[in-house]
Amino acid sequence: MRPSGRAPDQMRAIIIEPNATRHAEGSCMISFGDTRVLVTASIEERVPPFLRGKGQGWVTAEYGMLPRATHTRGSREAAKGKQSGRTQEIQRLIGRSLRAVCDMTLLGERQITLDCDVIQADGGTRTASISGAWVALRLAVDKLLAEGRLTADPITAQVAAVSCGIYEGTPVLDLDYIEDSNAHADGNFVLLSNGNIAETQATAEGATYDEAALLDLLRLARIGCSEIFAAQLKAAGR
Amino acid sequence: MRPSGRAPDQMRAIIIEPNATRHAEGSCMISFGDTRVLVTASIEERVPPFLRGKGQGWVTAEYGMLPRATHTRGSREAAKGKQSGRTQEIQRLIGRSLRAVCDMTLLGERQITLDCDVIQADGGTRTASISGAWVALRLAVDKLLAEGRLTADPITAQVAAVSCGIYEGTPVLDLDYIEDSNAHADGNFVLLSNGNIAETQATAEGATYDEAALLDLLRLARIGCSEIFAAQLKAAGR
Amino acid sequence: MRPSGRAPDQMRAIIIEPNATRHAEGSCMISFGDTRVLVTASIEERVPPFLRGKGQGWVTAEYGMLPRATHTRGSREAAKGKQSGRTQEIQRLIGRSLRAVCDMTLLGERQITLDCDVIQADGGTRTASISGAWVALRLAVDKLLAEGRLTADPITAQVAAVSCGIYEGTPVLDLDYIEDSNAHADGNFVLLSNGNIAETQATAEGATYDEAALLDLLRLARIGCSEIFAAQLKAAGR
Amino acid sequence: MRPSGRAPDQMRAIIIEPNATRHAEGSCMISFGDTRVLVTASIEERVPPFLRGKGQGWVTAEYGMLPRATHTRGSREAAKGKQSGRTQEIQRLIGRSLRAVCDMTLLGERQITLDCDVIQADGGTRTASISGAWVALRLAVDKLLAEGRLTADPITAQVAAVSCGIYEGTPVLDLDYIEDSNAHADGNFVLLSNGNIAETQATAEGATYDEAALLDLLRLARIGCSEIFAAQLKAAGR
Amino acid sequence: MRPSGRAPDQMRAIIIEPNATRHAEGSCMISFGDTRVLVTASIEERVPPFLRGKGQGWVTAEYGMLPRATHTRGSREAAKGKQSGRTQEIQRLIGRSLRAVCDMTLLGERQITLDCDVIQADGGTRTASISGAWVALRLAVDKLLAEGRLTADPITAQVAAVSCGIYEGTPVLDLDYIEDSNAHADGNFVLLSNGNIAETQATAEGATYDEAALLDLLRLARIGCSEIFAAQLKAAGR
Amino acid sequence: MRPSGRAPDQMRAIIIEPNATRHAEGSCMISFGDTRVLVTASIEERVPPFLRGKGQGWVTAEYGMLPRATHTRGSREAAKGKQSGRTQEIQRLIGRSLRAVCDMTLLGERQITLDCDVIQADGGTRTASISGAWVALRLAVDKLLAEGRLTADPITAQVAAVSCGIYEGTPVLDLDYIEDSNAHADGNFVLLSNGNIAETQATAEGATYDEAALLDLLRLARIGCSEIFAAQLKAAGR
Repeated sequence: MRPSGRAPDQMRAIIIEPNATRHAEGSCMISFGDTRVLVTASIEERVPPFLRGKGQGWVTAEYGMLPRATHTRGSREAAKGKQSGRTQEIQRLIGRSLRAVCDMTLLGERQITLDCDVIQADGGTRTASISGAWVALRLAVDKLLAEGRLTADPITAQVAAVSCGIYEGTPVLDLDYIEDSNAHADGNFVLLSNGNIAETQATAEGATYDEAALLDLLRLARIGCSEIFAAQLKAAGR
Repeated sequence: MRPSGRAPDQMRAIIIEPNATRHAEGSCMISFGDTRVLVTASIEERVPPFLRGKGQGWVTAEYGMLPRATHTRGSREAAKGKQSGRTQEIQRLIGRSLRAVCDMTLLGERQITLDCDVIQADGGTRTASISGAWVALRLAVDKLLAEGRLTADPITAQVAAVSCGIYEGTPVLDLDYIEDSNAHADGNFVLLSNGNIAETQATAEGATYDEAALLDLLRLARIGCSEIFAAQLKAAGR
Repeated sequence: MRPSGRAPDQMRAIIIEPNATRHAEGSCMISFGDTRVLVTASIEERVPPFLRGKGQGWVTAEYGMLPRATHTRGSREAAKGKQSGRTQEIQRLIGRSLRAVCDMTLLGERQITLDCDVIQADGGTRTASISGAWVALRLAVDKLLAEGRLTADPITAQVAAVSCGIYEGTPVLDLDYIEDSNAHADGNFVLLSNGNIAETQATAEGATYDEAALLDLLRLARIGCSEIFAAQLKAAGR
Repeated sequence: MRPSGRAPDQMRAIIIEPNATRHAEGSCMISFGDTRVLVTASIEERVPPFLRGKGQGWVTAEYGMLPRATHTRGSREAAKGKQSGRTQEIQRLIGRSLRAVCDMTLLGERQITLDCDVIQADGGTRTASISGAWVALRLAVDKLLAEGRLTADPITAQVAAVSCGIYEGTPVLDLDYIEDSNAHADGNFVLLSNGNIAETQATAEGATYDEAALLDLLRLARIGCSEIFAAQLKAAGR
Repeated sequence: MRPSGRAPDQMRAIIIEPNATRHAEGSCMISFGDTRVLVTASIEERVPPFLRGKGQGWVTAEYGMLPRATHTRGSREAAKGKQSGRTQEIQRLIGRSLRAVCDMTLLGERQITLDCDVIQADGGTRTASISGAWVALRLAVDKLLAEGRLTADPITAQVAAVSCGIYEGTPVLDLDYIEDSNAHADGNFVLLSNGNIAETQATAEGATYDEAALLDLLRLARIGCSEIFAAQLKAAGR
Repeated sequence: MRPSGRAPDQMRAIIIEPNATRHAEGSCMISFGDTRVLVTASIEERVPPFLRGKGQGWVTAEYGMLPRATHTRGSREAAKGKQSGRTQEIQRLIGRSLRAVCDMTLLGERQITLDCDVIQADGGTRTASISGAWVALRLAVDKLLAEGRLTADPITAQVAAVSCGIYEGTPVLDLDYIEDSNAHADGNFVLLSNGNIAETQATAEGATYDEAALLDLLRLARIGCSEIFAAQLKAAGR
């Protein structure tokens, strides 16, 4: 029995509010249950130095957590003077995931930065970030298309992510904080709407796992991402 | 004529949603028009080193702005590795303002940290932060009182803040971003519900000002803060 | 009775030694009683990136305190690897104050940096810094005029600053360290020789204050700044 | 055809020289072809703050690359003043992998730090690091057992890691730098000698992949790790 | 012919003003010609962690240069966020030199920090710092002796330093900035009043040197330090 | 009697393995007994900003020590976020020493960086670094000559370094760690194959020394460097 009473293959409520902030070219507030992340997409008409003059664009991500997004207050990374290894690992994953569905040549020499800021945390902040980032990116690109700054759509597919893990011996979908803290193995799966996998990260905690367990987790991830894909389309007005 | 069409002594809409986040002991989302700040109050049963063993508490504040809270994206302070001088100046002001209405001996050996994170900016983020911080502090202290961890209320008054400035020759209340960028003088006023002033910071930009202008701005600040005091009480359920 | 025996509206001895150091284009050692600050003005024929090509100049300031300027040794900011919030707040105030009396278009595409280093501290280091910075700036600009690198004087007025506060119930002028540590309210006032105010910063410490008290402090500040204006002119040879 | 002429399921030459340095309690130089990593295990009779007094130990890892381990010189992280996100991600993975095979209660209140320094890089530095770290840890623990400081062996299994990827449409084992730079998908697999998986990290680059491809990569990883397990035992004198 | 017109074995004017600042336990302003350094000695009744409980004291030094001590403004190390390699090298040398004349057991469990801040630079700032630091240390120790906090004098000798170099083929004493910039070899010599040498640092610049040249420089250094020893005694009232 | 049983004027075994790493333009592993340093020379076709467009090159050095190169593990400088004063002092010395034998005009507008990384430490890491750096530089320059990118040899002489000190009253050559920890005076001498001295750094530890002792140490240094010069030539294939 899961602490939340959910079935093993049941997602938490997914809510995606598009245009959640005023200034960004694209944005949304995404909730997976009590986990809430504000994602903004910012378009800049320049690319990082290593891409200058190559006729292609870039998509990157930054991630942060408000100090009291969590049960006990964490220290503010800006005050500590550096981003933790965990933060950097997560923002690298988000950026990679979104780049997997963006044709950089079609995007042209511009950069889109996806800022994912966790307002409230209850497990799955990185997967909610990736899932919300697609909506923010979609809205920002739609703006470029509407304004005629882009003529062809550089987005090649949807991307979504969800965590799955083995909780008290059972593979379960979309771990919340209590489950995450006690799972024997947990994984983050980044899937595309065309059926392919962009990233698998599955870590044993205490126990280890085998191929069968990995496939079980992946099967759950496909269930969860289907639901997220639908919510993304609705939020993006498609 | 103000760009927003407001009268010179007219505040923007003040909205304070209490308990805006789940984990913090006290919190609110405060809006002054399009400026939105999430404030959380976190209680920790320890004090900074300089106060240890002195039988008194501490109230402090931290301030941050999400990278895309503004018209164009600003760089993330955590990624740059340091807080700007502006950020530090603001969080020092917030902390000082809240300490002005808190009896540290009655609070006991605990620290309350007020995190003010700007979700969307349109001028006046520091004054909205101070005004919201009082609500978050009030709710956190109410929790301590309700749980019997405090027997006497350490909060001695309400504190609120508003900016005023001289815009196109006219003293106006609660500057929004357009006004703030073009004001010839602007000030931030931190006032107490008992009629006293906690802090005055009035800076000439381009033009300078005199005692009469300063009194004009203060008179407007009193009008604005009256309205904020009422909204605070309502949000705090008092 | 003030600890120093001064009358409430009495400044400490103001001494300004011009050309206190050999290499700087302008400099002075300024003393307000036992507070001593060395100020240098350095001219560079370049402006910060945000001003390039705009045909105007910039005036900025940096502030530091020698580790043993104070009663007990403070740690060296260079060794700690960052400037404190207090340092940044002060140097931003100094820069803003001096920019209030300088016509940036007349200055042309060059930057003048005012370095204010506290050799000995006894309260009022930021106000002495501002007051001395005007002399250093004046001397540096006079050099530019004498060399024909400037044809019109970009300095539009004198600027001086002084602290005032309420000490044991009485408004007093130019707080020294003992008074500053015990004042119930204290303010820093930056005034121009044309009668206008450039900046007011008045903070309640413990007690709070009202409009009347603020005006009392401002009245004292005008008395103090008159005396500083005279000393500045004499030091600058005018 | 692989650039190196290897068969798809062929590892590069694995060489593990135990006791490669004089001072460390355990160490080895491990080579996967031209990739060479020096790993040392350092025992300290103290644990990190979060574990103090809990009667258990800790295993952690740090990773670095000499500036000219690579084709072109990279800047020295110590000189830049921070470790890159990549470095932090890798050292977190190494630590997690080794903790998966160590019983912290049996280890007792001591910490073993595994320093993995890349002397020469040609792809697979993180997997060589993990594989070599097990040998260094094994030797250090053997020393504790020999000296009677430990009576029961805290190491519960062997751990090894290898990268696999899809190169020109074919799943291949143990990518070298040229393959790694051109692979359409690549993964790092951390396996235990008891048949379980400790960690799977598989990333699409350009192309994405499906369950079948993931299983193919895992099958290759099992082949590679079998060979590494044998080399580890030999190096550790078992 | 030296640019200053001095004879090869002629020092610049040495001026040491004792008690140059109010708060420090010992201090002086030392000038070697146009090079001026303010040195303060601060006594703290604690020692660094590595000495705790060992019954002995510590003498350490920090060095800084005001941004405009030099011909062109240098950036402020506190603003840059780190001390340069040059600064660290110099402050390590100063500390080592003063420790050479202090019996740490007689000093007892306290630390004396010598802050050497260059007010104006014209070559020889590190040697002036060492020479002035002895005076500040002497005055601080005299205070401890006078107050009965020390009963035996821990200072075992005088220490002084001077630079010498080969300028246009001739060995010269006490290089000023112009000579220093053009010397073919230059050295810093730290000598004791008992005739011994504490430190020799002689570097070839462009040309290299031999034993004879090194002895020539050392001979000049003895001449210079004799003069400094006399000035130190006079400044310290001995 | 020296702990190692060596005669006072006896070096430890010098072993220099050229081409110790694959990617660098020049490299060697140098051992002075148990001290082992990996040195690489990296050629870059650009110079630091202060040399741009001046038609000359630059030689610089960086130094690091692996965390467990020493008896007890030291913290990793990249993790601490800064290089220690000792590290900076050493790398400045290495760079200066190599520049003493390189004609920057003949080198042309390119930079050669010498990375010296201590794999195992037993005293004398900086002198082994300098001695090995010459070999790495020689091999890198030979490559430039062989490829026709240089037509004249910019290397004007050999440079080598060795430490000498007074151990139990006797001047001894090439201090190992035990001797270094107990020496009453120790020096590092950087000598050229043409008989000249590039750098002398001799520090008293506890005891001080005089001219005669300095000459004794220098005489030993000449003996040691002769042996190193021969080993360098052999390693460089000359």
